[in-house]
Parts: sequence; C-alpha cells; structure tokens
Amino acid sequence: MASSTSKCSYLRVMKRRMGHILVKLGFCLVLLSMNYTVNAQEGYTDDDALFIKSLFDKSLSSDQAYLWLEHLSENIGGRLSGSSNAAKAVQYTKMVMDTLNLSRTWLQNCQVPVWQRGEKEEVKIIKSPSGKKIKLNACALGYSGATNSKGIQALVIEVKSLEELEKLPADFVKGKIVFFNRPMSRTELRTFQAYGGAVDQRVFGPQKAMRKGAVAALIRSMTTQIDEYPHTGTTQFDDNETPIPAISISTRDAELLSKEIRMGSVQVFLKCACRRLPDAASHNVIGEIKGSSYPNEIMVLGGHLDSWDLGGGAHDDGAGCVQSIDVLRLFKEVGYQPKHTIRAIMYMNEENGLAGGKAYGEYAKNSTEKHIVALESDAGGFTPRGISCEGDDAVFLKRFKKMNAWNDLLEPYDMRITKGGSGADISTLKPLGTFMMGLRPDSQRYFDYHHTSRDRISSVNQRELALGTALIASVIYLIDKYGLE
Amino acid sequence: MASSTSKCSYLRVMKRRMGHILVKLGFCLVLLSMNYTVNAQEGYTDDDALFIKSLFDKSLSSDQAYLWLEHLSENIGGRLSGSSNAAKAVQYTKMVMDTLNLSRTWLQNCQVPVWQRGEKEEVKIIKSPSGKKIKLNACALGYSGATNSKGIQALVIEVKSLEELEKLPADFVKGKIVFFNRPMSRTELRTFQAYGGAVDQRVFGPQKAMRKGAVAALIRSMTTQIDEYPHTGTTQFDDNETPIPAISISTRDAELLSKEIRMGSVQVFLKCACRRLPDAASHNVIGEIKGSSYPNEIMVLGGHLDSWDLGGGAHDDGAGCVQSIDVLRLFKEVGYQPKHTIRAIMYMNEENGLAGGKAYGEYAKNSTEKHIVALESDAGGFTPRGISCEGDDAVFLKRFKKMNAWNDLLEPYDMRITKGGSGADISTLKPLGTFMMGLRPDSQRYFDYHHTSRDRISSVNQRELALGTALIASVIYLIDKYGLE
Repeated sequence: MASSTSKCSYLRVMKRRMGHILVKLGFCLVLLSMNYTVNAQEGYTDDDALFIKSLFDKSLSSDQAYLWLEHLSENIGGRLSGSSNAAKAVQYTKMVMDTLNLSRTWLQNCQVPVWQRGEKEEVKIIKSPSGKKIKLNACALGYSGATNSKGIQALVIEVKSLEELEKLPADFVKGKIVFFNRPMSRTELRTFQAYGGAVDQRVFGPQKAMRKGAVAALIRSMTTQIDEYPHTGTTQFDDNETPIPAISISTRDAELLSKEIRMGSVQVFLKCACRRLPDAASHNVIGEIKGSSYPNEIMVLGGHLDSWDLGGGAHDDGAGCVQSIDVLRLFKEVGYQPKHTIRAIMYMNEENGLAGGKAYGEYAKNSTEKHIVALESDAGGFTPRGISCEGDDAVFLKRFKKMNAWNDLLEPYDMRITKGGSGADISTLKPLGTFMMGLRPDSQRYFDYHHTSRDRISSVNQRELALGTALIASVIYLIDKYGLE
Repeated sequence: MASSTSKCSYLRVMKRRMGHILVKLGFCLVLLSMNYTVNAQEGYTDDDALFIKSLFDKSLSSDQAYLWLEHLSENIGGRLSGSSNAAKAVQYTKMVMDTLNLSRTWLQNCQVPVWQRGEKEEVKIIKSPSGKKIKLNACALGYSGATNSKGIQALVIEVKSLEELEKLPADFVKGKIVFFNRPMSRTELRTFQAYGGAVDQRVFGPQKAMRKGAVAALIRSMTTQIDEYPHTGTTQFDDNETPIPAISISTRDAELLSKEIRMGSVQVFLKCACRRLPDAASHNVIGEIKGSSYPNEIMVLGGHLDSWDLGGGAHDDGAGCVQSIDVLRLFKEVGYQPKHTIRAIMYMNEENGLAGGKAYGEYAKNSTEKHIVALESDAGGFTPRGISCEGDDAVFLKRFKKMNAWNDLLEPYDMRITKGGSGADISTLKPLGTFMMGLRPDSQRYFDYHHTSRDRISSVNQRELALGTALIASVIYLIDKYGLE
C-alpha cells in the first residue's frame, strides 16, 4: 500500500461527548479548558479520555517494557521453576522495580517443584509400513518420567481422545506407546478455546495411558499450525506414581506418524532423561505504589515470571510481567498518585504448580488488606482487544455494568471490556471476592509460539506489547478513580 | 498461560437475536430450523449468522490462500512492474483462478513504467566528527536516479521537513546531499496515519532537494521501529527531469548519521545504478462469478499484484490478491451463487504508477456494467479489525447506515464496519459512484515489513490472513443479498 487516510476516532469520540459550544470553538480550546466536565452520570469525564490518551502516548513512545522483556527472554532465557534462570529473573525484576522509586518492593517466599528435562530427547520411528526410519521433533512434557540410558522401543497405538483410550482393553494397551493425536480445532476464533478443547490429552493422557499399562505416551503438539516445533507443557502424575515418559511431537510429525499407523504397525524408539528433584525455595517478586486514600485496598496486576525451558518465555509470560511493571512506571512518569494501592506481582511457578499464586493467595487471605481487583496478563504480548472480566453473580454484574460504561473511552483504541476469563495466578484471590480480570490480546499467533523454542523476543512487537500496558493502566486508572461499587 | 476459558460470543449474539421460545429449546434446535427468520427490519436473519460462521470456518480450516501467497512471495518473489517476476505473477494468478471453475477469467492490458534498481546501492559515511567510517543500510527509492560508476561524495545537511528545506538558501543546498530525517510518529494508534504524516519526505523530498541544487537525497526509512532495514517506496520526479539519487537508509543509521551531523560536518559517499526503461506491456488479472439476477452489476474485490523488489511482497500486497481470489473459492466451495457479479482483480502497478487501476477505471467508465461496490485489501494480511467505508455525502451515509446494522453479525469476530479509507487501485471507480471499502487489518506490525526485504511469507500468519478472507466474503455476501439501497 502506498498511502492511506482515515479519521482520528479519538477526536471523534471526544467530540461526541462534548457540549455543542466547545465543539464549535474547536478542539484546541478543549485542551485549554480541562475543568470542563460532561455528564457525570455517564461514568467518566473528558479529562479521563485525555488522561488515557496520555497513557497510550507514553507507552507507545517507550521501548522500556520491550527492553526488559528482551533481557528476560534473551539474556536470562527460559525460566523453569527452581532453575538458576528463574532465580536470575527474580533478582532482575526486583532490581528493575527498585529503580522505579516505588513505595515498596519485596520478595515473597514460595516452595516450588523442580523438574528438569535433562539431555535432549530422542524419538524415532524404527519400524514402519513405509520402511522409513524417521527422527521426530520431540520434547518431553513437564513431569515426564525418564527411560534408562538405552531408551525403550515399543509398538504405537493412536487414539483421538481420553475416552477412546478408556475403551481399549488393558491387555491391548499394555507394553505399548499410546499416541494422542486429536488436533486443536482450527475453526475456533479464539485459539484458547481450541487449546481448551484439546489439552486434556496432554494434561491427563500420559497418566491414563500409564494406568492402563502403556510404557510411554506421545502427544500431538498443541497448535493449529502444521509445523516442526514440539510444544511442551505440564502433564499430571500423582506423587505416589513413577511417571512414564510423556513426550510431545510436532504436528507435522504427528501427521506423519498417524499416516504410518493407518498403513500398519509402527515401532518407535524413545529416550529421555527427565528427572524430578526435591522442591526448592523461590519467590514472587512484588512492587507497589501505595494508595493515597485507601492504602489498605489493593489492586493486583500480575504476570508469571517462570516459563518453560525451551524458549525465552517472551509471550508466556515475560510479556505479562513487564507490562505489570511498566504500568507502575507509567503512573510514576505521568505523575499519577492512585487512591488505592497498585501492586504488581511477578508470580512464580504458574507453569507447573502455581506455588506463587497459592503463596500470595494465602498471604492475602490472612492479611488485613482488602484485594479489590486483580488483573492478569498471561495470554501473550499481542495487540490487546480488551479486558475480560470473570464472574456471573449479581455483585459481579453490577460492577461489570459500571465498567461497561467506560467502553466509550476504549473505543478509539478498538478495545473493549467484555466477560471472559482472568488468569491462573490470580485465581487464588477469587474466594476473597476480588473482582477478576484478564488482558485479552489477539490470540491468532499465540499457539505458534506457546511452550516452544520459538517463544523469543523476535516474536514480540514493541507496539503490540506497549498497547497492552496502556490498556491495563487505563482500566486500573478508571477503577482507582471511580471504584466499582 | 496454562489454560483459559471464555464464553463463545458467537453463541451469545445468536441467542440474543432469537425468539424466547427457541432460546429455551436450546441452540441445537435452531440449527434444525433454518427457515426461522427474526425481525427482518434489523437488516438480517439468523441464517446470515450461520452462513457467515460457515465462511469463517471454511477459511480458517484452509491453507489455500497461504499456499498461494507462499508461491507468490517465495517462489516468484518481488514483483516490480515490468519485471519478469511481475509477468510470472500474472501467469500464476491467472492459472490459479482458472482452476476455480469461475464464470470467466481474463487479462486486462495496461502499460506500466519500468524502473530497475540495478546493482546493490552503496552509502558510506566517509568523513565525520567521530572519525568513524560507516557503511549505512540503504536502498534506492523507486524512480531514483543513478550516480556514475565512481559514485559521488558530498556534505550532508539534515532537515526535518519539506518546509525546512524550502527555507534554506539555494546556495547552501547546492552540491550537497539533503537528508530528510523526521521520524514517523510512534503515538498514532493507526500506523498508516503516522505513515501519512511522514511520507511526504520520501515522495516529494528528493525532487525538492534536486530543484534547490542538491546532488542526492537520503531519506529516513518509513517505520516507527529503530532497526537496520531500509524501506524503499516511490519518489516523484517530472518526466522532463533527470532524477538525482534518492536513497532510503535504515532508521538506526538515520539516528547515527543525525548524531554525527549534530557534532559537525559529515561527508557521505554514495553509489547506485538505478535506471528507467521504456514503458512495458503488463496486465491486470481478473476472475469473476457471474451474478444470477444482476449479472451487469459488479462487486469488485481487489489487491495489487506488483510489489517492491526487495522482499516477497507478502503483506504488500500478495495478501490482498490471494484473499480476493480466495473469496471466490470460498463462495464456490460453500455453493453460494451470488445475485450480483463478484469480480476479483489483481491490479498491476499500484506501487509506482497505478497503471492497472487507471486501465480498469477507464474500462469501467466506458462499460455498460454498473460497479456497485469495490473493496480493496492493501493494508497487510494481519488480523482484520473490520471494514472501512469511504465517503461523506448523504447517499453514502444512507448506505453506511444500512451496513452498520450488520455489525451485530461481525461482533462475535471482534470486527466492525467503520468509516475510513478504501484503496488506491479501486480509487478510479469512485467517480462512478461506486461504494468504496477497504479491509482494515491491525496495523501495528505493518511498517516493520512494508517495502523491505522482510516482507516475506514468514511474516504472515495463516489464521490472520484467513480471517481477512472470511470478513471480506461476509460483507460481500451481505451486500449481495440485501443491497445497499
């Protein structure tokens, strides 16, 4: 495209919401007359529109969050709970917040499970109808068990669901490798729904296969794309079980393996060296701006600092961490003093345990503080489409209605407040009556990167990340100013 | 993020728009009772919601448009007007449309200007206050003149605008290289607006500098990012002028050059071998599904087939081409027979002349056909945020209002119909009273790739591209069914 024009919808909304006289005098005058306030019953003033514009301008103009994320993703790298990288990330984000002249920063203890991948996994088709011997792109799932140093080989049986496995006779499954191969739906607009519709295979499949006597499980990677990248993620075994190897293979290789199985019997060799170590001490990293009027009323912003080990944890969830910190930086920079305490929390261990979320939830439950709202960003650093609010009861609906009035203010940014999910880390605040929210970024690309070696800074766009920061700051500002009651 | 849930807003909107009884009987019944039609005065029926869902499902499930685009971008490559690649792209897209069992496909002649980059450009700082000798990442602009084989060297003066250059005395400019260095604004939410606010330097700067006696012009690349990629694009000289070298440098190098200039005098060496050749014959590529009721009333879908030579022209504008073709494929696949003729046009020469747009406009003016609507996709293959409609007069507003009623149907996809620009290629239909529309994708990443070596298939996401196809198909379907009057 060589050029394009379009109306500035920011101005349009501002004008629509102003008195006739001011509109006639022109927009410049408005900028000089900031005491002018329209129709308070609509739930906001024109000052709010300008303040929000200033947050977006500041955020879009700054590389700060992107640079923090680059350090987390590239200089530190993957940050699985209990790893030295996770410890480095704790120190780094604490240090970053210490430079922001916040009211307080601190570390909160939590005990995290420790699982290590060990040497690179090997998965090979060694006997197949086509005669091909093929190495598959594979990675062990979190909590996968190990093989011995010689590896194992066995026949593979393919199923499309837990139910299908359930129906197979145990003596048919015994000694075999169970291959879960139901694809994520491509037709769900929101890819998280497609993920939700397939991920039971990864979370519960290996355990169920083991209990039927399988010697290992292979899982089709959780992505709608057909590509060569294996996606890791957590799988579930009970503490008293010795886990079998549970290994994810790329969607391209899943298609290939399935094709061979359709033609006849297939033997696979696999080897992995995963191990579980004793739990270790780790931390949530917390910083806050103390509220001027209600210091004891807390607004939590969160992301999780731990990530899978394969990539740099850029979208998942370095993005949510740096956005949370950057909201505090923005408020300091524009000189906004909140009435309530705004607290950014880098949670530890979302990926394989939620230890940080539980530790903070325990703290909150026993604290005299009141946690009024919590907002998590854990769906990637992509262009935000809005904020989703979680709930259904009458109290929720009243608050949600109040927030909906602010959609006018977000319309110029093509964003809106909707119902939907919030986040795993903050979920422990839900029983306390906290109003739960999540950043809702465009989800189309998320599962191209999620839990893979590709989740690096190169897959993040500085503007998209910055828009998320600005949106979170805007909504937190409005709640701080007007409350939800 | 480990998991997430949210309500299916598609179901929500469907339910909202249905009678109470059906809602109580549950959604499944609705699927069995497709003759049920709600409140025709709202401008659509529930069948429309289901039909649109089927278009999105088909499009998201298909790699077809992505594979066509991969061929255009990677196997053919950059397709500057008059090049052999442009000719290959004409043959390829004609061949693709010939496989779709359309009513008709054909080539439309047009004469295109031919400009060639020649050997790789060289730009070096050879004398600077810091003493550094630095090679700059550079590319000539379209229609740039050449140096001789020895290159030229001259002092550099920096300006931030055409006006600033205008004010400089001609004898100060004479013999020097003028460096235009006003950045694109980072705070514009819509990056095309930021582009519009800076691109005058590229389009008019070199000519104005030449007319004041400059020996060459350097232009800061058109992107909000600070990176190492030079962005090409067209610049303007009159036919009776001998163009000076007009060269774009990366934003990183523009910052560096500017820093040196702030410290003292800077000499730059540059060499380029661009040349203008005689105009050549080329083509628009056209395919259509004939309308059953109004074959003489035409709905144009368009993109442009030519691209700059540096990358693969994936987003600009291979995406718009394959989306336009894919809308026809989708309609054939779901068995939709339009009442009006739907015509996909791959325009030639948008980037440096608009010869294809002019040729088609001339044809349309002299034809007995009536061009009722035209919709161009030329803003990249990113997640679409909606369709923008161009106009202001009373007739436009009446039609726009009718289209607005369809926003309910697009809400489940987070898309909407707004006012805004349409497209350069179709602009020649505007004088005929054609209703003008443009696909409006998320614009945050566009200028990371625009007119650079990075505009390749690897920067395109299959789902984002497919959503654009589905949205165009949906809006074209609604207009075909209900008209705009």
